[in-house]
Amino acid sequence: MMKLPVKGIIPPMITPLLENKELDLSGLNKLVNHLVDGGVHGIFVLGTTGEGPSLSYEVRKQLITETCRIVNKKVPVLVGITDTSFDGTMEIANHAKEVGADALVVAPPYYFPISQEEMGDYLESLLPLLPLPFMLYNMPSCTKLHLSIEVVRRAKELGAIGIKDSSGDLTYLYMLIEEFKADPLFSVIAGTELFLPETIMNGGHGAVAGGANFFPKLFVDLYNAAVDKDLEKIKSLREQVLKIHKTIYEVGEYSSRHIKGTKAALLAMKICEDHNAEPLQRFTEAQRSLIKEYISQFNYKNEYNSIH
Amino acid sequence: MMKLPVKGIIPPMITPLLENKELDLSGLNKLVNHLVDGGVHGIFVLGTTGEGPSLSYEVRKQLITETCRIVNKKVPVLVGITDTSFDGTMEIANHAKEVGADALVVAPPYYFPISQEEMGDYLESLLPLLPLPFMLYNMPSCTKLHLSIEVVRRAKELGAIGIKDSSGDLTYLYMLIEEFKADPLFSVIAGTELFLPETIMNGGHGAVAGGANFFPKLFVDLYNAAVDKDLEKIKSLREQVLKIHKTIYEVGEYSSRHIKGTKAALLAMKICEDHNAEPLQRFTEAQRSLIKEYISQFNYKNEYNSIH
Amino acid sequence: MMKLPVKGIIPPMITPLLENKELDLSGLNKLVNHLVDGGVHGIFVLGTTGEGPSLSYEVRKQLITETCRIVNKKVPVLVGITDTSFDGTMEIANHAKEVGADALVVAPPYYFPISQEEMGDYLESLLPLLPLPFMLYNMPSCTKLHLSIEVVRRAKELGAIGIKDSSGDLTYLYMLIEEFKADPLFSVIAGTELFLPETIMNGGHGAVAGGANFFPKLFVDLYNAAVDKDLEKIKSLREQVLKIHKTIYEVGEYSSRHIKGTKAALLAMKICEDHNAEPLQRFTEAQRSLIKEYISQFNYKNEYNSIH
Amino acid sequence: MMKLPVKGIIPPMITPLLENKELDLSGLNKLVNHLVDGGVHGIFVLGTTGEGPSLSYEVRKQLITETCRIVNKKVPVLVGITDTSFDGTMEIANHAKEVGADALVVAPPYYFPISQEEMGDYLESLLPLLPLPFMLYNMPSCTKLHLSIEVVRRAKELGAIGIKDSSGDLTYLYMLIEEFKADPLFSVIAGTELFLPETIMNGGHGAVAGGANFFPKLFVDLYNAAVDKDLEKIKSLREQVLKIHKTIYEVGEYSSRHIKGTKAALLAMKICEDHNAEPLQRFTEAQRSLIKEYISQFNYKNEYNSIH
Repeated sequence: MMKLPVKGIIPPMITPLLENKELDLSGLNKLVNHLVDGGVHGIFVLGTTGEGPSLSYEVRKQLITETCRIVNKKVPVLVGITDTSFDGTMEIANHAKEVGADALVVAPPYYFPISQEEMGDYLESLLPLLPLPFMLYNMPSCTKLHLSIEVVRRAKELGAIGIKDSSGDLTYLYMLIEEFKADPLFSVIAGTELFLPETIMNGGHGAVAGGANFFPKLFVDLYNAAVDKDLEKIKSLREQVLKIHKTIYEVGEYSSRHIKGTKAALLAMKICEDHNAEPLQRFTEAQRSLIKEYISQFNYKNEYNSIH
Repeated sequence: MMKLPVKGIIPPMITPLLENKELDLSGLNKLVNHLVDGGVHGIFVLGTTGEGPSLSYEVRKQLITETCRIVNKKVPVLVGITDTSFDGTMEIANHAKEVGADALVVAPPYYFPISQEEMGDYLESLLPLLPLPFMLYNMPSCTKLHLSIEVVRRAKELGAIGIKDSSGDLTYLYMLIEEFKADPLFSVIAGTELFLPETIMNGGHGAVAGGANFFPKLFVDLYNAAVDKDLEKIKSLREQVLKIHKTIYEVGEYSSRHIKGTKAALLAMKICEDHNAEPLQRFTEAQRSLIKEYISQFNYKNEYNSIH
Repeated sequence: MMKLPVKGIIPPMITPLLENKELDLSGLNKLVNHLVDGGVHGIFVLGTTGEGPSLSYEVRKQLITETCRIVNKKVPVLVGITDTSFDGTMEIANHAKEVGADALVVAPPYYFPISQEEMGDYLESLLPLLPLPFMLYNMPSCTKLHLSIEVVRRAKELGAIGIKDSSGDLTYLYMLIEEFKADPLFSVIAGTELFLPETIMNGGHGAVAGGANFFPKLFVDLYNAAVDKDLEKIKSLREQVLKIHKTIYEVGEYSSRHIKGTKAALLAMKICEDHNAEPLQRFTEAQRSLIKEYISQFNYKNEYNSIH
Repeated sequence: MMKLPVKGIIPPMITPLLENKELDLSGLNKLVNHLVDGGVHGIFVLGTTGEGPSLSYEVRKQLITETCRIVNKKVPVLVGITDTSFDGTMEIANHAKEVGADALVVAPPYYFPISQEEMGDYLESLLPLLPLPFMLYNMPSCTKLHLSIEVVRRAKELGAIGIKDSSGDLTYLYMLIEEFKADPLFSVIAGTELFLPETIMNGGHGAVAGGANFFPKLFVDLYNAAVDKDLEKIKSLREQVLKIHKTIYEVGEYSSRHIKGTKAALLAMKICEDHNAEPLQRFTEAQRSLIKEYISQFNYKNEYNSIH
């Protein structure tokens, strides 16, 4: 059984892909070990950064299986099951259970622009069928629905063990913390990595930090500093996170640049390949060189990227 | 070979489902014959009204197979293949080819908010692999991308035979007609049924009219009246279409009410069941009664709903 | 008294300005006569195209006074009174009454993002105080509120004589026509010039056509052709309107290019200066040259731009 | 001369109005003294909370004059000058200078949906003419423009002494702090009161906190606690701020409820009347009673609302 509340640094793991769009199994092995060695508290696969919806069920299932195998119960594995097809959602959920994953993560089905009420009804259909503990996932820029507090409350009554909020709206995240603070087992997790100290110091539980893909220890250290309320350390580590934003995340255009940049960073660190699933394309050669240069500028790089 | 340009009334067929979310095969048989007997010029399955993204691949493939079998080449069958997974898209496309469908319909993969440029790159990857003729599908309210004229032009160069526009933006549709009027084989099809006469009389080719699910002959007659520029007939038939908007489409809330209302109308006409795929739920008993009453108020009902 | 329903071509007159941002009185004189000679059925000043909100009250009042003087009751003058200040709105309204304008045009106050209900309450405060007949003005891209049919109905009960819809949403405009068709004195006017024939042939009353600033006779002829249901003539004139869209309206960037292009067209036709009020800037020299060239390409130019 | 950088708690003062929409001068006197006694570091009049754009120029000027008179140089007075009319903006700016205000605050003119580039050009026209130091004001929900970092940089080159960000987007605010941290005289001020500790502890300078209208000392104490990095005190005071959000700000509907609730709170505290300028309406009797009850529930009320 996974320990509740879910907390700490849970990287939204990118999915390492070969040029032919099959899993980069060697890269996956290195990446998972890189994360576990970095001290992360869990791994979230098949989220937005993991390009979950872009992968075939076969690849999704293989990724879950392989990740669980490599992780080998050292940390919990959380699996994004969101799909526009109810059967597809259940197929992934059941597979996750079978191969030993620890929890599921559910966002709104993302084709129709549904209402809060329709989302609530959907959760009433889905949640009782799930074979593992589950969290909600608020991701309005992709799903077109900013989950109301009321819907989150309904999900909690149906058994949800937490929510990951990637809206970028910190006021909303603070309201979630307030709403659910009476339940010590319900997690509120930030999906915006810059908000990690704010989340922890104000009663939240952790962060699904994309940058933890390449610098897991940086975010783990920042998490610990926030738990310890060590303001000096927070300040110094936060400067590294800001530097990521001003360098690696500034390469390229469009919101997808964060995913592309993260994969290019992992390539620069020789951890895995940087191919994207359609409809995204990896960075150009020039953009990859820039990322490589940026990665080399991080002084604490060696500390943060021990590779197997 | 399908005759080009694609034109006329091509209903975006709803997917008849049983309570257990399997295909309502008896209903599908009645519905397809209802449409063909109504004189439609083609049938579009697995679009938004068809709840394509909500169905499992298995159900999608079964629907294509059965529809093609029942249609039996009397009219072209167009198949929506849009999916967030490239492999999923190809799986549906290849199945459509195998079982005798005539054309494919492609919208942007709908999870990531991609840019026009990223959409163009995606089309360059996908279109050359498609085993059948294909049209574009502009559906910004669901896909988050309003296809630029430039992207449509790029798709045309890659072989697209037309575009169905469901943006509701008639100025854009007129600009599409202008842009492509030099090519007599490229179709511009309205996805907003109220714009059928406008589209036809100004150089467009047809309409993917949701209301043609229940009253196919009404829309076919309106199409013919528009082709004939018979203003009196257009006026009289258009009044029936407006009446649909003010009655059937006004039941319920949220944008999904059009799909739910269309299914309830078909139930009222004893053509098929009205269950929806998750995340949508069918209308309540009271809403269904209202739809039934509205259906009974259409004087030309008998003319338009001959059932097998 | 102005004859009801308001109908025909009512250009949203641009405000001719000198480089020092004072009124270009000589240009105003030419422009008003150009419009009246072009056969327009009314003139709408201080709308969006007229940059009303960008002008000081002094300039707004001078413009109303001068326009009414030059028009000299040949056609009705409608005055945009929308302002974020209630007193400002009343000041313009009362001035319009004093100097002989015929009607007022009211959009939502545009700073706060207000709700439909708040808009309804605002109309209950404002409308009974207005000293002249008034129309509503739906302009969501600038005011952030797409007026609900319910709000329009409430305004009608409070005395509104019509609505001008610039939403670009033809389905909405058709619903307005349906809603109010029982009252022969209530006008539904299109603010999207491409929709002029659609509006007239389906029961609407006219168009506030920006392009009528430079080619008033083109739009008046198109209006008459639509009234006469002369499809051949509609087709031929509509091609000219489309040509405007593909040339003059395509110069420059951003939505403000329509206003800048319209002013540059009037400069090219030697009718008035092309300065804009802040925050807009007139076109560059290169853009103005392009507009000049485009204007010269309209074969029917001489017919449409007789200048005093 | 005002001391730079601008910092601390600068309430966006509501504008006390009588039922006839004239200034509530007695209420204004009490309110200004309430704020100054509460220890605020400045007063910002004619912002969004101050309903600036809804007031006539006469009332705006009277408010500036009276506020400066009552404040009597005890703290700086900042004046919102944003207007859709350039002349109107200058009229307010010049009046502010004349009567002794200390700085001006500039947001985008809010009628046209302008581009970043157009905003930059506007600033180049306006800023050199301003007679007092000025800050930028980012308020996308009202102005439709989320100022780019590039535009803020351009404004700084033209002399801006800071920016107040009310976007609610803390990532953006952090990027502003990063961008301008090399200049110790340039202020980054939060417009979202919940973000006060985050802003101060990460290098920002202050907060324009709406709740400081009724509980100025609460926010001043919180500011000081943040400056002192006194985590215990921050936690305890922040709980009071959260309580405001869960009580006073939850009354009523629509985004305008914050302004209406703030005025109702001041009425409950017998500081001033609660009338709003059109298009807003004050709360109903029941809503006002609820606010009164909530105000009475704040234990530290006496500490925070000493009234003259």
